[in-house]
Amino acid sequence: MTTEQPKPIRHPQHWATAAMPPLQRFLAGCHAEFWPDHDGAVANYIPELGKADPAHFGISLATLDGHVYEVGDSRVPFTIQSMSKPFVFAIALDALGSDQVERVIGVEPSGDPFNSIRLNAENHPFNPMVNAGAIACSGLVRQARHGDAFETIRDALGRFAGRRLDVDDAVFTSEAATGDRNRAIAYLLRTSDVLKEPVDDVLAVYFRQCAVLVTARDCAIMAATLANRGVNPVTGEQVVTPYAVSRTLAVMTSSGMYDFAGEWIYRVGIPAKSGVGGGILASLPARLGLGSYSPRLDGHGNSVRGIKVCEALSAHYGLHMLNRSDDARTSIIADYDIGANPSRRSRRAQERDILAAHPDAVRVLELVGTLSFSNVDYVSRQLAGSARPQFVIFDLHRVTAMTQAGLRLLAELFRELADFHVTVVLSGIRRSSAEWQEITERTGDLGNVRDFYLLDTAIEWAEDQIVYRYGGAIDFIETTELAEQPLLAGLSGDERHELAALATIKHYQQGERILAAGEPANSLFFLRSGVIHVTLPDGIRLATLTAGQCFGEMALLEPLRSADVVADFSATAFEITLDDFERFRARHPKAGERIMRNLAQLLAERLTIANARLNLLAAD
Amino acid sequence: MTTEQPKPIRHPQHWATAAMPPLQRFLAGCHAEFWPDHDGAVANYIPELGKADPAHFGISLATLDGHVYEVGDSRVPFTIQSMSKPFVFAIALDALGSDQVERVIGVEPSGDPFNSIRLNAENHPFNPMVNAGAIACSGLVRQARHGDAFETIRDALGRFAGRRLDVDDAVFTSEAATGDRNRAIAYLLRTSDVLKEPVDDVLAVYFRQCAVLVTARDCAIMAATLANRGVNPVTGEQVVTPYAVSRTLAVMTSSGMYDFAGEWIYRVGIPAKSGVGGGILASLPARLGLGSYSPRLDGHGNSVRGIKVCEALSAHYGLHMLNRSDDARTSIIADYDIGANPSRRSRRAQERDILAAHPDAVRVLELVGTLSFSNVDYVSRQLAGSARPQFVIFDLHRVTAMTQAGLRLLAELFRELADFHVTVVLSGIRRSSAEWQEITERTGDLGNVRDFYLLDTAIEWAEDQIVYRYGGAIDFIETTELAEQPLLAGLSGDERHELAALATIKHYQQGERILAAGEPANSLFFLRSGVIHVTLPDGIRLATLTAGQCFGEMALLEPLRSADVVADFSATAFEITLDDFERFRARHPKAGERIMRNLAQLLAERLTIANARLNLLAAD
Repeated sequence: MTTEQPKPIRHPQHWATAAMPPLQRFLAGCHAEFWPDHDGAVANYIPELGKADPAHFGISLATLDGHVYEVGDSRVPFTIQSMSKPFVFAIALDALGSDQVERVIGVEPSGDPFNSIRLNAENHPFNPMVNAGAIACSGLVRQARHGDAFETIRDALGRFAGRRLDVDDAVFTSEAATGDRNRAIAYLLRTSDVLKEPVDDVLAVYFRQCAVLVTARDCAIMAATLANRGVNPVTGEQVVTPYAVSRTLAVMTSSGMYDFAGEWIYRVGIPAKSGVGGGILASLPARLGLGSYSPRLDGHGNSVRGIKVCEALSAHYGLHMLNRSDDARTSIIADYDIGANPSRRSRRAQERDILAAHPDAVRVLELVGTLSFSNVDYVSRQLAGSARPQFVIFDLHRVTAMTQAGLRLLAELFRELADFHVTVVLSGIRRSSAEWQEITERTGDLGNVRDFYLLDTAIEWAEDQIVYRYGGAIDFIETTELAEQPLLAGLSGDERHELAALATIKHYQQGERILAAGEPANSLFFLRSGVIHVTLPDGIRLATLTAGQCFGEMALLEPLRSADVVADFSATAFEITLDDFERFRARHPKAGERIMRNLAQLLAERLTIANARLNLLAAD
Repeated sequence: MTTEQPKPIRHPQHWATAAMPPLQRFLAGCHAEFWPDHDGAVANYIPELGKADPAHFGISLATLDGHVYEVGDSRVPFTIQSMSKPFVFAIALDALGSDQVERVIGVEPSGDPFNSIRLNAENHPFNPMVNAGAIACSGLVRQARHGDAFETIRDALGRFAGRRLDVDDAVFTSEAATGDRNRAIAYLLRTSDVLKEPVDDVLAVYFRQCAVLVTARDCAIMAATLANRGVNPVTGEQVVTPYAVSRTLAVMTSSGMYDFAGEWIYRVGIPAKSGVGGGILASLPARLGLGSYSPRLDGHGNSVRGIKVCEALSAHYGLHMLNRSDDARTSIIADYDIGANPSRRSRRAQERDILAAHPDAVRVLELVGTLSFSNVDYVSRQLAGSARPQFVIFDLHRVTAMTQAGLRLLAELFRELADFHVTVVLSGIRRSSAEWQEITERTGDLGNVRDFYLLDTAIEWAEDQIVYRYGGAIDFIETTELAEQPLLAGLSGDERHELAALATIKHYQQGERILAAGEPANSLFFLRSGVIHVTLPDGIRLATLTAGQCFGEMALLEPLRSADVVADFSATAFEITLDDFERFRARHPKAGERIMRNLAQLLAERLTIANARLNLLAAD
């Protein structure tokens, strides 16, 4: 035994001079509070375990966004022992398939201590958390992987922890030399035909798996991987399937703490597993993984200080897994139709009239956060209860996650809408994303799902469909003359004639960039035919314009172009240089004033729309 | 037995002609699929139960936002039987305190059938879900409420269901007449001193509580109340405490399905309870409550079709409670400092310079959705990792719920920030709200928490503090003349002099409304001293203005005022009527053009700010 005093690390250095996350402070507080507790004794049923330093005490907590909190001896290695059981069960479920595993290992609590030799009525282990069940799991992996069985397990445990794990050979040798009770269990399992492999081969795997070295930090990340549906939150790797994870957590819940299981779920309510090496890991689904190391054990074989940390965490923050709350309504951040909030496209009178006659033909639902079962169900009821739109746009731009249940319900909603001839339009989701894959896998055969990355483009497209449906094709190659330009409204025929004489007619190909942000702004344009769009340098589309509208008009106020302008289709425009325009204004000051008034009017209209949109986003 | 054929209601009438929520369709599908299943037998251990119609089949699902789905015979009454046990346990926990209840009733699974007479090593019932434990609960309520014990229970069950519940007297009489095994259990409990009350009195309560009449719809709402931390989602009433709820769900998880409990949590993963009357209720925390009624039972005493509905719901949507996912990062919808996004207040050069020198002095975090443990922890790490602001504004406008864990962590974060002299400013939360109560209960002694309902007001206040801190008091009664007005920039001295002669000086008291939306816009104003603000009719503050700025200038473009203008402090302004102004412009067309150009420039600046804000809200 070492006499060296541990030097607990309370927090990373950079937090010393600024506010610390409360969780870091809480864990440091737990460490300080339980540090003086010297109850319990280091396991000594095998000599090597007895060498652990009883003073060691480390705590680590891993969040599902991959942050790892650590306090004290969180990097001191110790043997994993029984904490390997849930992971090897999960590995067996994935490696052999659930049928083969569930056929020979039960899932009911036994009420017996962990090393009980009693089997259930079918002569099978009661569950994978007692030694009999765990040895059966190692036997199944051995059956599938033969001589590679242990490396398969070590590799998988390493992927749970996010690093390669070593084995303590002295503990392995010691355990193998003294493991007669486990030998008895293994032979009994072989008579019941649960074990197909030679007992010595299986126990070599089992003893070695129990001697894998981990730290409290490793335990936290391993537990967090279970809490995160099998995805290691630090490395991002999917280590086991969600099926294996939920079933593993189920047996941890019903049998993880042996004959203490009912009390544990009652009082602490976080699935957990302990090992006689002094480790405890606790996994709160969708929240966190906790790991602790303190080798003094109580009569149940659980780490005394580790149990206290689990209890304190659950009690202080009310983290009992059956004490959760949520609100389904949080996913809808905006819900409107095009009557209340049209696209940024400037439309001509004929189009405006059609859209005004069908204000609720296009419904927009902007969603946010996680699309869970409850959230999508709530969304589906919002659509079922009201007037039936022809297009429903789901903006997923701020959706950060979709649960399996949410995805399934969403796909069912799309199918339901398809049956009623409602077109679903998705925005804010890229076709290269995992979410897109998951959605299209479930809705691939539906003809009613469209997607546009930008919400405004999606709204504009849906509006175009309405315009087309009720107004027939809109003639995009219509040609307008200067008389129809709002910027020039109120000018006399002579003044317009003079301006027209100053203009050059320019032709643009589809996709051609007409103006670029940052260039000198030395002319203004009046769109004569075609369609163009205005975008900010970061790709945000400010407006789509058709014949009869101006662009580049901010040259009247600003020296540089602030946006890109690109032709959507082939387009023609009148260009008037700023120099010519200034000369015209000098000759016709009243016309100049009138144009500036028109410009202010256009800007005021755009400001009104922007403010309405801001207020919509800020609304309750 | 009735021979009448049930007429299943598939869905409410108004959904027949439009898209139906997928969950309604799913439940209707379950009903149709399991309807032909005639396995199992109606309970007949007491004659009255045998009279149930084996054809009856009703399903109901209640969501936590209070919607109740129903299919089939969801309104047919039947006796609650063992489904009363978890609720009476919860009632006892609240009525007597957890110590008194937990002292005499265990929480470990027994592995025995529900009517086992075996007690645990301390001669106490193994748990509240076996008859012995349930009778002990009824005894405790009787001990606390004496003759009112049954009415206390009936009243509480009714609050779980959201309506007053009746009793089936025939079933009660039949059960009382044949309940000798329960009498044996009760006498055994009395010898162990678990029951203090006379056996007959306790059993009268117990038998009557088992004969309470419920429907599948009631069961769904009762289960949803457990899933919703004790708040009935339909009536909004807090029926029992969150402590009682989590412990009740814990014993349902470990013992709710008797010797089938391990298998149930493994396969279905939703805490549930069944009754021999044919009911099953299942409660998935933070998600839903399910109720079903179908009186044919399997060998365990569970409704055959009810079990199938639970299994189908769990499997189809992946609702195993240990298979949850979430994302902590979803709560921050915008995170910026005043350098990137200042308040809407128009500031003078001196103030702008001070703020520009301290762009990260004020940090704004706009939060959304549920503030859970994970969300708040993530927020706390965003603040710990970066440069230390002097003010942190938490905008809670779009926060729809806070969990207990989230609230506690939030309070700890405020305390941490206080220790580092950072001022916390809350916006989007009203002092009359429950959330405000909960926050101030935990942070009442902190001097560093301020609140302003409007986010913009909060930002403006924090900016003022920075201006004051680095620039000394700003003189709000500074007086400016027309020469300093940006709208009149570029005019000659003579032109300004002529305009000044047209102006009237107006004086306003603090709080006085200067302009009202909808009034004719027939003058424009130049603020000379004081502070005024501009608000939309719906209360949204558009701008705060100080001396040297204009208001009502949109009169140059629009015939009616579009916003209210109110004096924040006493203020003076130059007013020029539109008629006078038009005459001035007619005499000075170049000055008129210049003013229009200035107006367009002001509008362009406001539009740039609005678009930046829109893009911020739309950003990833």
